[in-house]
Amino acid sequence: MIKAGIVGASGFAGAELMRIITGHPEVEIAFVTANQHKGTAVSDLYPNLTGVVEKNFTIYDPSLLKSAEVVFVGLPHGASMQVVPEIAAKGVKVIDLSGDFRFSDAAVYESWYGVEHAARGMLGRAAYGLSEIYADGIKKAAFVSNPGCYATGALLALAPLIKGDMIHSNTIVIDSKSGASGAGRSPKQETLYCTIDENLSGYKVGGKHQHIPEIEMVLSDLAKEEIAVTFTPHLVPMGRGILTTAYATLSKRLTTVQVIELFSKYYEGKPFVKVLPEEKMPQTKAVAGSNYCHIGLAVDARTNRAVVLSAIDNLVKGASGQAVQNMNLMLGLPEDMGLEMIGLYP
Amino acid sequence: MIKAGIVGASGFAGAELMRIITGHPEVEIAFVTANQHKGTAVSDLYPNLTGVVEKNFTIYDPSLLKSAEVVFVGLPHGASMQVVPEIAAKGVKVIDLSGDFRFSDAAVYESWYGVEHAARGMLGRAAYGLSEIYADGIKKAAFVSNPGCYATGALLALAPLIKGDMIHSNTIVIDSKSGASGAGRSPKQETLYCTIDENLSGYKVGGKHQHIPEIEMVLSDLAKEEIAVTFTPHLVPMGRGILTTAYATLSKRLTTVQVIELFSKYYEGKPFVKVLPEEKMPQTKAVAGSNYCHIGLAVDARTNRAVVLSAIDNLVKGASGQAVQNMNLMLGLPEDMGLEMIGLYP
Amino acid sequence: MIKAGIVGASGFAGAELMRIITGHPEVEIAFVTANQHKGTAVSDLYPNLTGVVEKNFTIYDPSLLKSAEVVFVGLPHGASMQVVPEIAAKGVKVIDLSGDFRFSDAAVYESWYGVEHAARGMLGRAAYGLSEIYADGIKKAAFVSNPGCYATGALLALAPLIKGDMIHSNTIVIDSKSGASGAGRSPKQETLYCTIDENLSGYKVGGKHQHIPEIEMVLSDLAKEEIAVTFTPHLVPMGRGILTTAYATLSKRLTTVQVIELFSKYYEGKPFVKVLPEEKMPQTKAVAGSNYCHIGLAVDARTNRAVVLSAIDNLVKGASGQAVQNMNLMLGLPEDMGLEMIGLYP
Amino acid sequence: MIKAGIVGASGFAGAELMRIITGHPEVEIAFVTANQHKGTAVSDLYPNLTGVVEKNFTIYDPSLLKSAEVVFVGLPHGASMQVVPEIAAKGVKVIDLSGDFRFSDAAVYESWYGVEHAARGMLGRAAYGLSEIYADGIKKAAFVSNPGCYATGALLALAPLIKGDMIHSNTIVIDSKSGASGAGRSPKQETLYCTIDENLSGYKVGGKHQHIPEIEMVLSDLAKEEIAVTFTPHLVPMGRGILTTAYATLSKRLTTVQVIELFSKYYEGKPFVKVLPEEKMPQTKAVAGSNYCHIGLAVDARTNRAVVLSAIDNLVKGASGQAVQNMNLMLGLPEDMGLEMIGLYP
Repeated sequence: MIKAGIVGASGFAGAELMRIITGHPEVEIAFVTANQHKGTAVSDLYPNLTGVVEKNFTIYDPSLLKSAEVVFVGLPHGASMQVVPEIAAKGVKVIDLSGDFRFSDAAVYESWYGVEHAARGMLGRAAYGLSEIYADGIKKAAFVSNPGCYATGALLALAPLIKGDMIHSNTIVIDSKSGASGAGRSPKQETLYCTIDENLSGYKVGGKHQHIPEIEMVLSDLAKEEIAVTFTPHLVPMGRGILTTAYATLSKRLTTVQVIELFSKYYEGKPFVKVLPEEKMPQTKAVAGSNYCHIGLAVDARTNRAVVLSAIDNLVKGASGQAVQNMNLMLGLPEDMGLEMIGLYP
Repeated sequence: MIKAGIVGASGFAGAELMRIITGHPEVEIAFVTANQHKGTAVSDLYPNLTGVVEKNFTIYDPSLLKSAEVVFVGLPHGASMQVVPEIAAKGVKVIDLSGDFRFSDAAVYESWYGVEHAARGMLGRAAYGLSEIYADGIKKAAFVSNPGCYATGALLALAPLIKGDMIHSNTIVIDSKSGASGAGRSPKQETLYCTIDENLSGYKVGGKHQHIPEIEMVLSDLAKEEIAVTFTPHLVPMGRGILTTAYATLSKRLTTVQVIELFSKYYEGKPFVKVLPEEKMPQTKAVAGSNYCHIGLAVDARTNRAVVLSAIDNLVKGASGQAVQNMNLMLGLPEDMGLEMIGLYP
Repeated sequence: MIKAGIVGASGFAGAELMRIITGHPEVEIAFVTANQHKGTAVSDLYPNLTGVVEKNFTIYDPSLLKSAEVVFVGLPHGASMQVVPEIAAKGVKVIDLSGDFRFSDAAVYESWYGVEHAARGMLGRAAYGLSEIYADGIKKAAFVSNPGCYATGALLALAPLIKGDMIHSNTIVIDSKSGASGAGRSPKQETLYCTIDENLSGYKVGGKHQHIPEIEMVLSDLAKEEIAVTFTPHLVPMGRGILTTAYATLSKRLTTVQVIELFSKYYEGKPFVKVLPEEKMPQTKAVAGSNYCHIGLAVDARTNRAVVLSAIDNLVKGASGQAVQNMNLMLGLPEDMGLEMIGLYP
Repeated sequence: MIKAGIVGASGFAGAELMRIITGHPEVEIAFVTANQHKGTAVSDLYPNLTGVVEKNFTIYDPSLLKSAEVVFVGLPHGASMQVVPEIAAKGVKVIDLSGDFRFSDAAVYESWYGVEHAARGMLGRAAYGLSEIYADGIKKAAFVSNPGCYATGALLALAPLIKGDMIHSNTIVIDSKSGASGAGRSPKQETLYCTIDENLSGYKVGGKHQHIPEIEMVLSDLAKEEIAVTFTPHLVPMGRGILTTAYATLSKRLTTVQVIELFSKYYEGKPFVKVLPEEKMPQTKAVAGSNYCHIGLAVDARTNRAVVLSAIDNLVKGASGQAVQNMNLMLGLPEDMGLEMIGLYP
């Protein structure tokens, strides 16, 4: 069995990594660290792992690294950059789930994250882990920066339109809706049950969310031109799931069926993206707990806009599932190994 | 006391009319009809009205009309047009909550609703009951067509931008999210608890929702030019509330503060619209059960788009509350009489 | 207008007091204190009060007391005992919503609350504010201790059985289920959206909840004998509401109809308790936002147990609504003044 | 691969059987029938199975039986008895998920289910499929009657107390709370989103639920005396999960720790039952999507009652997971094969 360590394992992404890796036939957990929960049983924080992951959280220590071939870093941004260079330096494969290594330009990072970058030497060295688009680079990489959850949903919805050169690139509006698990495990007024229940709101409205530069980086890369988007995140009273509704004006007249064909071709052979037939729209619950991304499409002929909806589980395809998918690619394992979980519906 | 009748009172809009009118100091309920629930106690369907509205549903009969000065029609579209002409002919004030009389052109109605219009002679005779915008006409009207819930949220978000001539009118994208009560009381697979719970999806994507022509009618009227919009409704796992996120490209450079000022001025003296200060965004739960509409604003300077969010309770400001507001205007009562209910939060 | 002050107004009970008093025809808010939110606008914490309660939280200061005839204390237990003696000493009417003054015996308080009592001289001086049962005492009182939310639901369900001498008093089992607002506004891991959503659990199982001595105190008072109960609270994924299911073995054979008659007689003339007919069971949503308590009854003839279900809104009848009801009684106003709000359903 | 057929596959239990069997390493789906959805793609009803189960529902026909070694029957009670005799007669192993074959006495069935039994010759021939208790019989059986969801939760909570002879058997009170998926897939007023959301209620109160005789049958069998219980089911605003709170008076003094030890011993070697340590209580979300049952215990020393809480996923351990567990036992496969799914938390 291949040994995997998880640094920063007490957050939701860490918990999902534990859940997924437990079922992986070729990989097992070497260690789970969480400095603030040192000594705590994993099942005290995650009762679903009772009798399943019988480990305690430990303090992160570089000496742990020799017990693992691959390490997932589930720390918050700002903290991740403190440990990733060391892990990479030991020759251990690293998959970082934070935003710390998604940009090659420190200035971009610093302006959106409001944090000084402490590991500039590592910038530009990670493969961007959007598995469906950058698989070739990921397969060769020893260091992968896993995408943001919103970015994953938005990019899978928009990439085929951009690659197909089908839209006016300055007309992109992305309206995303996320379940509350995206806000993490720390108790805050904003993520209290009584705040979110039966409530719906937008936040960081007006081009302020830190996943914007990541979306623009990839779209610009695919388009070979600079693209700016308007992106609005919303918080929805549910635990898991991101539904992204993306809008763009078509540069020519196309029918819904034609756009579906283009998407189907683009995602041919990609096991986790399902392009739905005409009149079907994705539902977040259909992918809950799974690594799938469902995509639905319609052209608004009256305004000549394409409307693309994508649904993912933010903690799986938007975080830990995609991280394991990237690990599989890096290790030369089948891309979908250990990721066969099916969405929980109802 | 003024007597009000409710025809088609067994749906959610009817139930809310009963709840609201029960607390109105100048109006009382004369009768409640619901043919399919003839003889059933109101509290059997709406247990919140136990010991509060001690009436039974009756069959609709024109002879009831002489007992009321004003009649609300809460029937579905297609059914409403069967009774409204008769009510109006008796000289009773009518407020119709269906879509049947929102358009003057039967062809528009028929193409969006898929139903032949059976009362063409009445078309164009109703005042469109968006109280904040058409109060003058409503005050003089004996027949009001109450707006659709999505239309109310979208129009209150966009009217000041259009009136202020601040946007390129062909760039409007409206992304709306509604709680499940908008889908009504009839049991359907789509509105089952297990379908909606922890789920999020879009429907009628690509310019198919019947509130679109209503939104375009009013925006075009305000702009004095034809406006077409892209509108996507979504279903959110909560009971009440519509959050509308509207996007449009500004025709000049404006700051968020400038746009807020414009909105504040536009809604000055309107008791139910609250324009929020910079950095505050509306939440549906803040208006749940109330007739308020909260509006939040931000300019995305990077793309020069205005982003407007409005929150309403779809059953109150989006239906029955606005209907009572219109009744107050029609009867010369204070606009907010009986509508002082405050949102239930948490 | 009568002036009411609220000390400790930033919690959910405080917010509901503001919502309710705003609609009260004879009372208005004099001041709202919340030391940790000094200077914050009320609507920053409670967006439903935007444009409705245009006040800022202030620091509590005894000099405020002269501006009010009645003061509600919404502080947590332990903190309430620090200010109540001072308020009472000034001759201002006090309604305390904490558990600090519910017992005459300091030892009972200290063993269940784990806090030393700092105002023993005030013990036994407050009327216990279960309005339906102790109205006579409340009318004469200048100091009322408002009941706990669970205690209210349980006592309204059990009092008629005890008073009617219909059960074996050592067979009482109370299984209560509460929405999350009962756990208050402070962010905690246990009250995070992601902890409660789609989850159901019991807590303080095995006779550990601090509302137990309060339930036993009143039942014993009514029975004129010592009664001990088994009580288990549960946390349910919803915002508001307590459903209590109480079980007791009947001391004689009775039918469901006979028990309903007994309850109906017991609650005759009580405006807020509705005893439901046979086969109807209470639903928490029917009373959400209202001061009503709905009670449903069935006898399990096979085991000769009575099963009583009561539903209240924990923040209204279980806290702030009952506090206003007690205020009305204390001030000689109609018991239901300002409390006509109807449950929000759906 | 072993071939399994599902008769009546369009309900929630059928959908879960498809989800689980898809991941089973030794079994694959032979056919899925659903007469009313003949020809419909499975993924049209269950979008989580898009691209995963690429089958259409067919009409049930006995000729299908030769393609399967084992058949699950997911039909409603009353319908199941129409096909089970035929399946059993062909020598195909049958696991029936309905209530039709849980009793050996037709009179018991008929009085609780209100349906005449049409296959009396088959009564008493099925092993009762509560896997943890009747594994020996199930291993030898060709015909298993899978337990009801409430019965599973209640029996796993009470069996050790009965077997250990620790309680007064006439003091059992069972208060169960179920998510809405227990009510099935058919649209009904009672299971509409707007009815259940933010609502909590009891139903079939007073000894009327059809799982009562099943609970009493097993408890009586274990106790070797007739036992009657009071059982109240409740409907909770969540999709999955049953939390059962069971109460019984201890026949001797025992501590919580002693009772936990007894339970731990009783369930030793049972892979799906986890007895929690002192002070930990089960949560339904910890077992959502999994076949686990978590049990928490406390003794209320003041009243000498044991309080036992058990949590299961009603669709998995309460239905399809236990059915697969029984299939494994019948086929001589490891009991937990294909059932390693971990609860989805958060």
